[in-house]
Parts: sequence; structure tokens; C-alpha cells
Amino acid sequence: MNDRKSFSTVISNWRKLSVVELSRAWSGIKNFTRRTFTDSLHPDLPPKDAEKLLRQIKDCLETSDGGASSQAHAVEIGSQYFELSTEGRKKFLKILAENFDVDRKKVESAIAKYTGAISDTDLFKGEIALKEALTPPRLTLLKQFNALPQGFKFLIDLRADILPMKKESVPLSKLESDLKEILASWFDVGLLDLREITWNSSASLLEKLIKYEAVHAISSWQDLKDRLDSDRRCYAFFHNKIDQEPLIFVEVALVDKLADSIQKVLDQEVTPLNVKDANTAIFYSISNTQKGLAGISLGNFLIKDVVEKVSTDIPNIKNFATLSPIPGFRSWLDKKLGTEDADKFLEPVKKEIKTVLPEGKKGAKGLSEFIGSAEFVKQPQTEPLSIILKHLCAYYILKEKRDGKALDPVANFHLTNGARAERINIMADISPKGVKESYGIMINYLYKLSDIEENHE
Amino acid sequence: MNDRKSFSTVISNWRKLSVVELSRAWSGIKNFTRRTFTDSLHPDLPPKDAEKLLRQIKDCLETSDGGASSQAHAVEIGSQYFELSTEGRKKFLKILAENFDVDRKKVESAIAKYTGAISDTDLFKGEIALKEALTPPRLTLLKQFNALPQGFKFLIDLRADILPMKKESVPLSKLESDLKEILASWFDVGLLDLREITWNSSASLLEKLIKYEAVHAISSWQDLKDRLDSDRRCYAFFHNKIDQEPLIFVEVALVDKLADSIQKVLDQEVTPLNVKDANTAIFYSISNTQKGLAGISLGNFLIKDVVEKVSTDIPNIKNFATLSPIPGFRSWLDKKLGTEDADKFLEPVKKEIKTVLPEGKKGAKGLSEFIGSAEFVKQPQTEPLSIILKHLCAYYILKEKRDGKALDPVANFHLTNGARAERINIMADISPKGVKESYGIMINYLYKLSDIEENHE
Amino acid sequence: MNDRKSFSTVISNWRKLSVVELSRAWSGIKNFTRRTFTDSLHPDLPPKDAEKLLRQIKDCLETSDGGASSQAHAVEIGSQYFELSTEGRKKFLKILAENFDVDRKKVESAIAKYTGAISDTDLFKGEIALKEALTPPRLTLLKQFNALPQGFKFLIDLRADILPMKKESVPLSKLESDLKEILASWFDVGLLDLREITWNSSASLLEKLIKYEAVHAISSWQDLKDRLDSDRRCYAFFHNKIDQEPLIFVEVALVDKLADSIQKVLDQEVTPLNVKDANTAIFYSISNTQKGLAGISLGNFLIKDVVEKVSTDIPNIKNFATLSPIPGFRSWLDKKLGTEDADKFLEPVKKEIKTVLPEGKKGAKGLSEFIGSAEFVKQPQTEPLSIILKHLCAYYILKEKRDGKALDPVANFHLTNGARAERINIMADISPKGVKESYGIMINYLYKLSDIEENHE
Amino acid sequence: MNDRKSFSTVISNWRKLSVVELSRAWSGIKNFTRRTFTDSLHPDLPPKDAEKLLRQIKDCLETSDGGASSQAHAVEIGSQYFELSTEGRKKFLKILAENFDVDRKKVESAIAKYTGAISDTDLFKGEIALKEALTPPRLTLLKQFNALPQGFKFLIDLRADILPMKKESVPLSKLESDLKEILASWFDVGLLDLREITWNSSASLLEKLIKYEAVHAISSWQDLKDRLDSDRRCYAFFHNKIDQEPLIFVEVALVDKLADSIQKVLDQEVTPLNVKDANTAIFYSISNTQKGLAGISLGNFLIKDVVEKVSTDIPNIKNFATLSPIPGFRSWLDKKLGTEDADKFLEPVKKEIKTVLPEGKKGAKGLSEFIGSAEFVKQPQTEPLSIILKHLCAYYILKEKRDGKALDPVANFHLTNGARAERINIMADISPKGVKESYGIMINYLYKLSDIEENHE
Repeated sequence: MNDRKSFSTVISNWRKLSVVELSRAWSGIKNFTRRTFTDSLHPDLPPKDAEKLLRQIKDCLETSDGGASSQAHAVEIGSQYFELSTEGRKKFLKILAENFDVDRKKVESAIAKYTGAISDTDLFKGEIALKEALTPPRLTLLKQFNALPQGFKFLIDLRADILPMKKESVPLSKLESDLKEILASWFDVGLLDLREITWNSSASLLEKLIKYEAVHAISSWQDLKDRLDSDRRCYAFFHNKIDQEPLIFVEVALVDKLADSIQKVLDQEVTPLNVKDANTAIFYSISNTQKGLAGISLGNFLIKDVVEKVSTDIPNIKNFATLSPIPGFRSWLDKKLGTEDADKFLEPVKKEIKTVLPEGKKGAKGLSEFIGSAEFVKQPQTEPLSIILKHLCAYYILKEKRDGKALDPVANFHLTNGARAERINIMADISPKGVKESYGIMINYLYKLSDIEENHE
Repeated sequence: MNDRKSFSTVISNWRKLSVVELSRAWSGIKNFTRRTFTDSLHPDLPPKDAEKLLRQIKDCLETSDGGASSQAHAVEIGSQYFELSTEGRKKFLKILAENFDVDRKKVESAIAKYTGAISDTDLFKGEIALKEALTPPRLTLLKQFNALPQGFKFLIDLRADILPMKKESVPLSKLESDLKEILASWFDVGLLDLREITWNSSASLLEKLIKYEAVHAISSWQDLKDRLDSDRRCYAFFHNKIDQEPLIFVEVALVDKLADSIQKVLDQEVTPLNVKDANTAIFYSISNTQKGLAGISLGNFLIKDVVEKVSTDIPNIKNFATLSPIPGFRSWLDKKLGTEDADKFLEPVKKEIKTVLPEGKKGAKGLSEFIGSAEFVKQPQTEPLSIILKHLCAYYILKEKRDGKALDPVANFHLTNGARAERINIMADISPKGVKESYGIMINYLYKLSDIEENHE
Repeated sequence: MNDRKSFSTVISNWRKLSVVELSRAWSGIKNFTRRTFTDSLHPDLPPKDAEKLLRQIKDCLETSDGGASSQAHAVEIGSQYFELSTEGRKKFLKILAENFDVDRKKVESAIAKYTGAISDTDLFKGEIALKEALTPPRLTLLKQFNALPQGFKFLIDLRADILPMKKESVPLSKLESDLKEILASWFDVGLLDLREITWNSSASLLEKLIKYEAVHAISSWQDLKDRLDSDRRCYAFFHNKIDQEPLIFVEVALVDKLADSIQKVLDQEVTPLNVKDANTAIFYSISNTQKGLAGISLGNFLIKDVVEKVSTDIPNIKNFATLSPIPGFRSWLDKKLGTEDADKFLEPVKKEIKTVLPEGKKGAKGLSEFIGSAEFVKQPQTEPLSIILKHLCAYYILKEKRDGKALDPVANFHLTNGARAERINIMADISPKGVKESYGIMINYLYKLSDIEENHE
Repeated sequence: MNDRKSFSTVISNWRKLSVVELSRAWSGIKNFTRRTFTDSLHPDLPPKDAEKLLRQIKDCLETSDGGASSQAHAVEIGSQYFELSTEGRKKFLKILAENFDVDRKKVESAIAKYTGAISDTDLFKGEIALKEALTPPRLTLLKQFNALPQGFKFLIDLRADILPMKKESVPLSKLESDLKEILASWFDVGLLDLREITWNSSASLLEKLIKYEAVHAISSWQDLKDRLDSDRRCYAFFHNKIDQEPLIFVEVALVDKLADSIQKVLDQEVTPLNVKDANTAIFYSISNTQKGLAGISLGNFLIKDVVEKVSTDIPNIKNFATLSPIPGFRSWLDKKLGTEDADKFLEPVKKEIKTVLPEGKKGAKGLSEFIGSAEFVKQPQTEPLSIILKHLCAYYILKEKRDGKALDPVANFHLTNGARAERINIMADISPKGVKESYGIMINYLYKLSDIEENHE
């Protein structure tokens, strides 16, 4: 309130003023004002402009009241980011990172307050003070960026920009952490919508599938149409405030037995199965689309929701399984076969190796050469070969751990998500990528509906 | 991983097992299991059942992995709340409040870690540890309740249940505070949708307006239809996950001059104004609908968004103002007129009082009797009477403060929201409620579009 | 083509003209012109203005090419109808009726052509010529009125305006017949959409139900809400081009046995039945909403479509029946009881009448007085009374015919629509209207799903 | 009514029957029955099955009451068409064509009635009788086919099947004419919806554009996306009862001057124009999609509606023109140049021809060789060459007529639709198709908004 004129002066002028004027005189309210930054920043954010930006942010945070006008100001700051060059953006992020962080003194004073507290009430106040002190000022600003055009997407992209540089410095790391905290809350799975994507979906959405598919590349619109055929399903999570942009999606094949080859699943020549004859849903591809949401768990919820949806909509589908790649298998195996105790490790399948290897080759080295040859994937799938490969792969999937987690990232995802390793399939992905990653082997992880079944018993 | 059988045993049995069995033996994965609570709780939650609930929650939090199966478990706990009696619910809340709070020891150990930190990296880790320690375990559980049917509404209603009892104890107070924190994040204005409500909206939505209207009660469906006529507008914020339930709504009249009487605005006999002839939007009623969202600011954003929407859609609307009640005026004035220095306070309008009061009455006491009489609102609106009332009211609105805020709650809301007091209207609400609250006086607060105007210049 | 300049002149000027000018010179095309009628018609359409309108229509029909510009002209003529008074409208219709009819000479010449035809080809041409001659010129104009704002509704309303006057003259009758022909084609049931109406439907639609309900008046919004409760359904036909306006709607109660009282069906105090426990759908009210669609059959299709929809959506609903009024029963019975052979007609129920009538009353006259008394509907429903009333009503419904059709219009509708009379219910509508029409008796007509059942066997 | 038991018998049995049984005895109503054709027809419709089908249709038409059960029967007949082979379908159509036509005797008797009529009332009755007699019985059946799945599309496709064979016999011709009559009424432009098609439209709709584009083939999804870019528009008419199927669509380019080359319009490399800078809408492609709607005018209404829509939505667009092919130009010119008076016809551009032709060539023959050479479209666009080609083309477009209509079908469409020939563009379509049809020349037809402008003045 900016009432420079004293009340008595006002009163003495009473008769001369209309009521409107009077109230104006008294109110002195600073109107809804939006300071428009008359000169825009240089795209590279040279020192002078960086200084200006720093001042703008300081100003904004100091006068912030959390309300509509404060938001308008924040939005104006954020919108400048769009105009900056790569270099300018990095500087923008550094300004945010190196300033506006948690104030150590404030934390220490809050700690003092907390440790001195005796009564429950004081402890409660102490906790609040401590939490507040631990909240960096920039958090307010970052949250207000959601009012930018497509603001939620902007925040995701902002984090995507920071992620590659977060190891450069602790401050950048902390800024990234702040953004993750915000995003984890606003992209909580409860806020998302599960939607089916079909050939009736908009082309602008469908082209995103082509763009984002991370497991088995979509080669053309015809390939895409085939993946949305009558015996296929595709589901995605969407955020209410981000149009036409799936956050994560899964592709599903409805089949009548566990799928054992990705090439068969993707074969465009095959006549679609009548859905009434299907009993199994194969999740053959899951793709995260937003780098900026890395580390925020969506995949496990997506699978669970799709299992529920499909089993409700198509009651004859009883089994849910993946047909998954094993991205780390080949590099692990190659290394393993080069170690000294390789032969010992191969002991359980010694007999099969002997049967399989061509004359003149033997042991780990022989096996290594055999499976590494360009001809390998054209081998007939004999019983002994199958036993060898399944043994090696099962060992990799189930026994190789790091920090108590399965070494293979895909295995770790599904196993911690409640699935079990159900079947190993050799020559299941004979594309160059499949051979390069895992000698063509894929695996089915099985999701059991035990909870739902239990409810029905 | 529950691999009781050692790897060598497994290997020795190799030939006998199918690969599937093998992988099962190895994996020993606990499947997606949902422990169904076979016996449901008694509605009043007697000690034995309270004990059971406590155990369920402990179990849930201990095994929580933040994923889909943990959520399923939490949902089961939450769903029991629906079945409880009032008494049972209170006990449920107390169990949550008195257990599962922040662990003081954990905080202290985190403080030690933080205060001992020297490098930036250690400080960062310290902050993270401290924040984590300050997050009560129950927060995880409460957040997972969003997966209940209409879960976001459930969380709002849960807080509405706690609010009246939060003063009973610090733990309840802390639980309420936890819920507020969650809700403030998930009901951030950026996540909400502004929608217009019209006579074409669904009846199930419209009946909510009748139910929730808090300022000028809607007397009938005809009254409601009239408030949605061609020269009226109604806007509300909605949450994506709460169907057919406005969170807050504002009713707007499009008029050709500042409205000075709520009875005229609500008069159902008046022919609607052609919108092309309107120049002013009057916000004559704003109602929050969810008790559980108390203290989370929505009203200021609603006004701002509606101002932007209306000024874009109907460019001839240039002025935005309220026609607002003054809920605390009469009780304040009655008290003021009873004080010793009342006559001194009335000094500036002494002359007018003399003109206005009937013979035999004078001073503060006379004025008090005069305006308190049942006949008062039928008085002609003479110039002197107008001057007296406006003086008193302007003083109340603009000069009476508590903690630096306007004493009148409506005034405080609009003034801190960037509006200014524009005009005081006497005999503007002559309903019993209007007379009882403010001797029939209402006020227009003006919202200026200076920011938008500035942009256009 | 308005090529006044000869081609040679054009060519001689060739060098001086741009190609654009050249093509203009050649084309001389009359542009897309819309003759705007500069002076509008007087609302009462006095002779001078009637003359003007006649000329406008003549002009329009003469230059009509069936394309977009001709339509624009027709629309302009039609739009004048909105501005006319009742008197003016009648004159407008008469102008259309008395002019622009089939040209007898043209018909006769086409007849000559047809009767003279020998080859199939000539006969075909003759038929075409005859059909064309039998198509009144105004039909073109009337059809083009569909391009008016809400044009399809306009055509319906136009016919509603003519219907009451069609008996005044043959020309008006023919005009009405033309409109019916157009409407029958554009409101063919195949073009309509069946939609469910619920409490989630828009208020503007729901208020139409209140307005149009023709059988059991809806007393309030609460009554309406009750009719849309969880154990009720309401379906209507809509036309793509008429917004928010049901053409015909039916109200359905889901119950667990054949309903025998409309008061019970409409009782707002009764707890809704769980739909899973229902086995019967009772159609208790069907209302046409558009007078202008009189004689165009929609009701039978609506019932059939709703039977299909409900039996698909709620498989436990196996029976479909009405609870129907008997609008002509009382007036028929009163007359019957006054005839000479009344006692003979009552012979089969002589014994019951004796039991039922109070002392001192007997025969047809006594019965007449007894059932005509104000106290009648409060009588206990004794067996003999029931036998008498059911006998009389069954006779009326099933034996009284006119032109081979059931005398009772509702009976005729359902019986010709494939239903059968299933049960007569006494004291089933004890409202004043029910007593006045049918001494409180109602009837259930049963719709059997034999066709659908047959398919499933 | 099948009351074999006499009323007296019924009455005598009265005491023994329940009311339900009684009413059944009386009613004897034939229920809603659907005769299911137990043995389906052979796909080729051999004589025995043709006979069966004939009987089915006869039966259906004889018992037809126009209501729901009659429709069910008709639908069953129609649905058999889907199962037939090409040969079977032809026989099906012939059965319909050769039977169930107008009954000549009935027409003659109606003629007698009509010619004998004296009073207006009798004339009216005579007209009605005559119209009825002229309506072939099969029309009822055909109309009821609209209740088949996607029935309206079925009727369109049925006509598409008949069109190529209609010249084979008068009966087939008449059947085709019946279908056209039905379709013209149900696809009246007033019943259609104009919708914009964008890159946000469903892929299943967009692939129809690729399929149906008849003027400038769409080479890929990228080409399609480019045609839906920010400075492009695409509009189509849709029918409420035909999902995802445009009936006719137009592609529009928003440009800043009259387009003179289709290759430039379709160039995917060009940066889109900012719509604010556009002043002209170029209709560069209109495609009918349904052969079965041939002869039913939609194109002129589509252009008119799009002109209105675009001029309302984008007020800076002031000019509307096409960039049209001239499909008959080359074949006309080649013939013309081969005639005896060719040199006389070339007289006005004699001088230019001399300038343009290479040495050794002259006159009509020389010109013919010159423009017919493969190198022709690579010629520089010199002034004299331009004059020659524009002269020849303008003559073709504006002077060559057949039956009073422009010889060129596209010219005829636009000129009768109110457009004028605005500018001739040489080397405007240098694709093989463009050269083959019109030596690469295209034309702009201009649509003037004079009517709308007049209204605004």
C-alpha cells in the first residue's frame, strides 16, 4: 500500500473528491502491472544481458506473491529462453543454477530452531521452517513456467537440456534435481490418462510413434498401420496439458501362443488373427518419448494399466507377456568367454558344445568364433545349440547382478516390476541390431494376473 | 530374490528341467501379488481393528517400492475408509496422524550429516538426506490414494474431514499439512482447465452450481437459466481427473455501466442486453466449491483468466469489475459506533448526519438507531445519506487493517489480487442478508487490464 | 453468355487487351449475384407486397439452375417468412399454394407422350416426363429452404403452420402434401440418430423433455431427474441438422415385474432398483415433439431400436412392455352403457355386477353411476370389480374397430406395431386425467423379441 | 387379425382364462417375426437361387407395412448382396431391374382417373394416384436398405455397380434412375456437413485423400502433410451416416498472388507463407470420391461453402480462384490443327507463329510438330509463344461449345458455377499428365464474392 498522502489530508479534501477518486487516493494500489522488458536479450546472452536476466529473476522472486501477477512476470522471463541460442540457453541455466539455490545460512538457522524445539508445536514449526529453508527460491520460478505456452512440455524439455550437463557441476546437478522433483509431482501416474492409439487417431499423433519408437523402428506408414491392425493394440499415457504427445507407449500383439520371433510379429504379410481366437497379449515394444522424464517411473504403471484394460475388454486374453530384447547379452558374453575360467563356466553344456562346433574348434574360444561368425544366425536351430544358448542367456538374465539388480536393464525393469522370465527364444531377432545386441536371442517375461484372479476366486 | 536352491543344485538338475522351470527356479520372483484383506474392518474401528489397520499400513509402507503393486496395496487400504462410520474415520485419521510421521532421529542424523558437510557435493547429499528425513512416510501412502475411484476428489474430501479437527492435536495438524502440500501440487492452477458453463452444460453439472453458490443463493432452475442468459457468463476451473465438478466458479454479468445493485443484476424480468452494446463485465459472485482445497489459491487465477478470455472473445468489453459484498461492515460499524471516540470519528460527516437524522436523534447513537431500524433500507437515497455511508464504508475498506491486510476478507482478496476499490453503492443489496451484513451497501472493485493494454501500445 | 461483342471485334482489339481483359470480354459471365431485396416486406403482406413476393418467387423459379446461386436466392425469399405476422404468414402460404402448383397442361401433354409410347425406351422417357410434370415447381423452392438457419426445423414448423388450415382449400392441402413428401424423405428413420438422454445431457435439451412430454406431465426438474435415475432410461431420435431438439422420445423404467401403476413408476420416494435385478423394460411414455412431422412414422422404429439397444446393453432385461393409457375408453364406455342393448352387452359379467353394485343400483345405469362417482377410484380392488372392468376394457381394445383398425389410437399404434395386449390393470392411473380418460385403467402391451431370439437359437 | 375363435366362444371360456390368455386369444397378433432365410444363396446365384431371391423380394413387398418389421425383412434381403460374386451381383440387380418396376396397367388406370377428374379434389386425388402408380415397388425395398450396416454407403456402391451396365438394357437404366432419385434426396447438400481436414484428422481419413485424389496424385504421406501445412486448407463434405469417408474434397493453397504453376504449389521445399500475408485462396484440386454419386451436384456447393468459410475465418483473403487443368485442350487442338481451315484459324497469331517456329517449319503443321516435340515444355516462355498459346486456349475455353455448354468439362463446371476465366498460364503443369492433356497449360477461374460484398455495402 502506497498511501503517501496521510489520511487527514485526504479527509480535508473530502468534499472535492468523488468517491472514486477518494478510494483511489486511499488505495494507491499497484495495479496488475506487467513490466514488459523493452529490450530483448541477445541470443548468446553476453555478460551484459546475463546480468540483466539475473536482475530480472531477482526482481521477480523478491516481489513474488504467488499470485496471478507474479506468474505473469515469471512467464515473461521463461519465454525468453525460446529466443536463445544453444550457448545462451546454457548460460540461462547456469544463472539459475548458480544463483537462487538453497541459502545455507537460512538452513542453519532453521536447524538451530529445530534442534532447540521441545514442544510438539515447536517441532512442527521447526520442520516447516526447515523444509522451507531447503526449498530453493528458483523452485517458485520454475513452477510458474507451467503457464508458458505448452508450459509442461517446456519444463520437460528444460530438464532434457540440463541432463547432459548435470555432471559438469554441482549447481547444475541441483537444478536438474529441482526440475525432477517438480516433474515427478506433475507427471504422477494418477494425473495421466491412458488412451488407446488406433489408425483412427490423428496423423499428427501417429507420426510421433514413428519418431519415438525406440525398440523396433517403424519403417513406413504402412508398417505403422500394420502395427495398429485388428489384432494389434497400442496404448499410451498422455498428460492433460500436453496435446497430441504420448509420454510413453506400448505396442501389443494379440496372438494364440507365446510369440517367439519379432520378425514374425512385425511381418506385414501375415493375415490378422481373429481377436476371438487370441489368448495372449505380447508387449513387444515399450518406448519412453520424453528424455526430460528420465527416472520418473511410468513404464510399470503403463503395463499394469494395459493388462487391466485388455483383460477387461477382451476376456479371452488370459496371458500377458513381453517379447523383449536383451541389450547387454552379447557384450557380456563376449567378455565372459574371453576370461580364464570361461571353460569352467561352460562346463554344464560341455557336451552340447562338442556336438555343435565344427571340426577343429573347441572350448570357449571355439564357441566365441562360432557364434560370432556372420553365418551364425542362419544355423539350423538344433537341440544342442538351443540348450547352449538358453543356458548362457538364463545365466546372464538371472544370475548376473550389479548392486542387487539384474545387470541387463530390460531384465531389471521387468523383474522388479513383478514379471518373471518365462522363455528364452533363439534366432528371435535376426535383424542386424538383434544379432549385434544378443546374438539374435529374445526373451519372454510373463506378467501374471494373480491379484485379479485371486479376487475372482 | 528368494533363491533358496543354490546355483549348483539347479545346474545339476539341468537336464530334467525345461527352460521355463529353470528360470522359475532361479528367479523365485514374488509375483505381482495383492494381499486381499479377507476380513473387512468394523465400521467403528474398535481397538482390534484399529490394530489391524495399523499393521496393514506398516506392511504397505515397509514393502513399498513406489511401483504398481505397491500402489494396488495402498488403494486397498484407502478403500476401507469409505466403509467406516464417522467415528471409524476419525480413528483412521488418528492412526495416520499419530504414526508414520517424520522420524526425529532420522532428521537429527541427517542434520549431523549436513552440518558436517564441507564440499558442495556433500552439502547436496546432505540436503537430499534432510529433505528425505523431513518427508513423513505416510506421504507415500496418501499420494497413492489418487488411484482410488475418483481418488483426487477423495483426497480433497479427506482433507475436508480433517480440517475441523486439526486444532485438536499437533499430529492431526501435521497430517492436514501433509495433505495440503499434496493438494497444492496436484491442484496447481497450471493443471486446471478453465471452462465456460452454459445452459448447454449438463444438468448434473448445473445442479452443482445451485448447490455450491455461496454468495447469492440460486432460487430455482429458472433463476439459474437466467444467470446463464445471453448477457451472462459463467466460468469455472476443472480438474482433469474430477468429472463434472467445478472447483471454483465465477458468475459474470455483461452490462453497459458499472452495476450498482445486485437485485437489478439478478432480476429475471429484465430483457437481456445485446452483448454488442455491453462494455463492462461485472463479477458478481465467486464461489469455492471444495472445502478440502481451503487455502489453495484459485480465485485470483480464475479472475485473471476470465478477464483474458472475455476481453479476447468480446473485444467491446473494456472494463472488469466486481459487485462485491462487504461481509464484515455492519458488525465493525456497530462496534465502532458504540465506542467513546465515535463522535470524533464521525466528525467529517457531522453536517450530513444532522441533515439526515430525524428530530430528537443525534450523534453516533442516533445514527446507530437510524440505520439499525427495519425501515432503513426503504429510505430515499439522499445526497447527505449517501455521503455518510460512503465515508464510513470507505474508511472500513481502506483503512481498517489487521496484520497489514484489509480487515474485510473480500476486500483483502481483491485488493491483494491487484484490484482497486472503485465505487461504493448504497442500497445495493436490500435482501435480508445484505442488510444484515453491510446495511445494504456493496462495492465495486475494478480490475485494470493495464498489462494487456501496455502490450498493445 | 453475354457476348455482345463479336469474336472478330475482340480479336481486332487483341493487342490492346491483357489476357485477363480478353477472357472477361469473352466470358461475359453473370457472376454469382445475389439480388438483395432492398425494401423488405410489410409484416402483414398487404396486396402490393404480396404481389412483390409473388414476383420474387416467379423470378427465382424461372432462373433456377439448382446450384448454389439459385439456392442463395431461395433462402432470401424464405427468410422473409420469419419477419411476417400471423396474417402475413397465412398470405405467404396461400401465395405458394395457389401458384406454383402442378401445371395441368404439362401433365396432359406428358400423358399423351406416355400413352403414345411403344418402345421400352419411350415408355421410360414418358414416365420421367410424367413424374416431372407431377412435380410442382414450388417443390424446388421448398427444398432450398433447408439452407436457411436451422432450415430443417423451419420446414417442420412451416408444415405445422399449414396443418391446421389444410382443410380450408385444396391448394393448401396440396402444399401441405408437398411438404410432407419432402419431410418424409429427409426425416427417414435411417437418417436419424438414436441417442440416450441422461442427467448428464445438457439442460437446454432436458428442458425440452419437460416441454414436450405429452403423456404424464413432468412436474419439476426433480421429477425429471427421477425419470433419469439409475433404473430409468430415456432415448430419443435426433436429426443431424437440428441441434438439441429430440424428434420423439420414450421413457423407460427398468423393473422386476410388469408395472401395474403409473403412480408407482413415477413415485419419487422409491429407492432405485439395482439394474442387475431388473428383467423388464417398461415403456411408460412416448412423446412426439414436432407437430410438423405428424403422419411420418417414427414411434415404431424408436421402440424397435430401443428394444435392441437395451437388450444388448443390459442382457438381463428379457421382457419389453408398455404401460399405456387408453385414451378413448371412458367416452366409449359411457356411450355404450347408454345404449339400449347395454344390458345384453354386460351379460357375461352380470353376476359380478350384482356383487359389486351398492343396494338399489343395478344394470347398465347402475354401473354407470357407480363407476362415474368421485369415490370410485378409492374402491377396494375386489375380484368381481376387476373382472367387470377387464372384460369391458378387453372388449374395447380388441373388438372395437374402425376401418379395420383398433378404435383406440394407442392400441392401434402398438398392435399394428407388432405388440400384443398383455395385461389390463385397474386403478393404474388414478390421476384426474387417468380417471377422466379411462376410469383409471391402463394396459400393458408386450413386445416380443422373437426375431432376435430366433437368431440366437 | 387372426381371430379364428369367435367372440362368443371366447366369452364362454371366460372364467377359465386369465386376462393375459384372453387378450392373446383375441389378439392373435402376428409378432414381430423375422423370417430367417435358413439356407443362404449360392454366390453365383444359379437359377434355383435366383428364383428363391425373387420370391423373397415378392414376399417382402407384399407384406410390407413400411414399419420396423418390414424393414428388418428388407435388410435381410439386402445383406445377401454382400455374399455374392460379381456374377451373382449382376443377377441380383437384374432381378430387381426386370421385376418390381412400375406397373403399366396401374399407371393407365390412374391416368383414366386423372383425366376424368373435374373437381379440384378429384384432380388432387388423381395426381396422388398417378404419382403412386409411377413409383416402382422396388423403391420401398431400396430405401429400406439404408438400415444395413453402413447402409447409405451400400446404396452409393450399389449405384456404382449398376452405372457401368445401365446402357445394357432399359430395365437396368430404370433401376439406376431409381437409385439416383433416392441418393439425390438423401445426399442433398443441406444434409451434408462441411468439415476441415487437417494433419490432426485421423489417419484412416487421411489415407482416403491419398486414395481418392483425382487431379494431382498424392505421392506420399509427406506430400499429404505438405498439402495440409499452415498455408494450406482442405475441406470436404461428409454425410452423418458415413463415417470417415469424405464425399468430395477440395484442396486450397493460401497465396499472395494468383498461382501460375501447379509444380510451385506442390513444391515441398517451399517455406509456408504466413497466413496473415496471404490474400488469395487457390482451389487447386477438387475430387469426387464416390462413383455412385455421379450426377448429383456437390462441387458447386462445396466451392461456395468454402469461399464463405475461408472469407469469414481469414478476412485478409479477398480473392478466390482455381488453378485448373484443361483436360480436353490437347486432343481438341491436335484435331483442329489437322483440319483444312487450320491456317485461317491461326490468322490472328500468324506473326507470333513465324517468330516462334524454327527454320523450315511453318503454318499449322509446323506448329503442331513444334508443340508436340518432347522438348517443348523446356522452351523459354517468350512473349510470342505466350500469345499463341493463350489465344488458342482462350478460344477453346470460351468459344468451343457443345449443346450450349463449354466443350471442356472443367471449364463447363466452373463457368456454369458462376466463375469466370481469369488467366491462362503456360508451362503451368509440366508433369507428363499436364503435357499430355493440355501442353502444360492451366487456367485460373475466378470466383467473385459480389453477393457478400453487396450485402456489406
